[in-house]
Amino acid sequence: MKIAVIGTGMVGRGLAGRLSELGHDVVIGTRNIADTLARTETDNMGTPPYAQWQEENLSVRLLTLREAGTHGDVVLNAANGQNALDALAGVGAEALAGKVLLDLALPLDLSQGFPPTLTIANADSLGEQIQRAYPKSRVVKSLNSVYYQVMIDPSRVPGPHSIFVAGNDLDAKRTVERLLSEFGWPASSIIDLGDITGARGVEMYARLFFTLYNAFGTFDFNINVTRAN
Amino acid sequence: MKIAVIGTGMVGRGLAGRLSELGHDVVIGTRNIADTLARTETDNMGTPPYAQWQEENLSVRLLTLREAGTHGDVVLNAANGQNALDALAGVGAEALAGKVLLDLALPLDLSQGFPPTLTIANADSLGEQIQRAYPKSRVVKSLNSVYYQVMIDPSRVPGPHSIFVAGNDLDAKRTVERLLSEFGWPASSIIDLGDITGARGVEMYARLFFTLYNAFGTFDFNINVTRAN
Repeated sequence: MKIAVIGTGMVGRGLAGRLSELGHDVVIGTRNIADTLARTETDNMGTPPYAQWQEENLSVRLLTLREAGTHGDVVLNAANGQNALDALAGVGAEALAGKVLLDLALPLDLSQGFPPTLTIANADSLGEQIQRAYPKSRVVKSLNSVYYQVMIDPSRVPGPHSIFVAGNDLDAKRTVERLLSEFGWPASSIIDLGDITGARGVEMYARLFFTLYNAFGTFDFNINVTRAN
Repeated sequence: MKIAVIGTGMVGRGLAGRLSELGHDVVIGTRNIADTLARTETDNMGTPPYAQWQEENLSVRLLTLREAGTHGDVVLNAANGQNALDALAGVGAEALAGKVLLDLALPLDLSQGFPPTLTIANADSLGEQIQRAYPKSRVVKSLNSVYYQVMIDPSRVPGPHSIFVAGNDLDAKRTVERLLSEFGWPASSIIDLGDITGARGVEMYARLFFTLYNAFGTFDFNINVTRAN
């Protein structure tokens, strides 16, 4: 598949690198290619410079947001949740029209410390906002309920555990489920939450997720939904 | 233990009945005893009249809110989340001082349909509001992440699954954990989320909970938190 990843941070790199290893034709979109490549410092989140990662991932090309969106048949929103709508505006509605838009971002507000609050919650969600902003795109919310290392390698967590998909377009959800399967998520672990309003549930779960991180001191955990038959 | 349950609905009755079966000295508090006993109709939630339940649960006494609170060494807030602070005001700070106050309510707003939104979320929680309103009480948030039938009989859900406690007072959390154990929750299923701000995580999880209910059509489910060792 031709896949565009929006976001040059740890999450975007992790997803892009793994998708490229899996044989997909992967590009990463950034606001300004020269600026992204010029950075030489590890940032305040501990993320090493992009150029260093690029050297080890030569098969992933860095393009502008618009070029990346045009390339991808599937577009992954892995931008920081607070910047996600701005970044997608940089891609543009035309490039996003008709595309599967996998939104794995969380609208986190870390300004008041950890665990973060959400900038959007309760009566709305980032996933819904993106779908409203790009009505011709087929938005699927998924993967945001686990750390990026678990997204691309669910075996980091022992035993069965669950991953969610929410979106209005059934075919788009099936495309995302194929990618989940390639990452190692068994079909039995995938729970379809229905339309894109299901994004609210998985985004609001973030508070419990980060509280559990505080309790455990590791991101190698997840929840398994279990029920009576 | 002397236990006061605040709330005469399905949840309060379920908890009170089970705690009484387990040998505790249980009372239920209500705003107006005569009104509660006078109702003869099943309400719009499908809950049969209290008097009918009372006939089958003679060991549970119905008292005023204040009398119930005075009786209980442990007070369970099982009132409708939107009325919880009003109901606790009826109990009064004096009766609640020093008590373990187990808050299992969710601040649900069902006015916009199902799944519900929350009346409090993100930067605050009902559990925290109750702790702030009653600083001399020892508030523990627990049990609100499962349906009341699962609260009192976790074996309705197969396999291991998790239940959370959050609160500022360690002894109070240990008291609640003893009650959880009596309901059938193994020690290994109990996850301590730290202080009462952990209530935010389990309350905001409600959106995912009710979305999962929509997907499954049953309340006999729960999540199991699983992690790398």
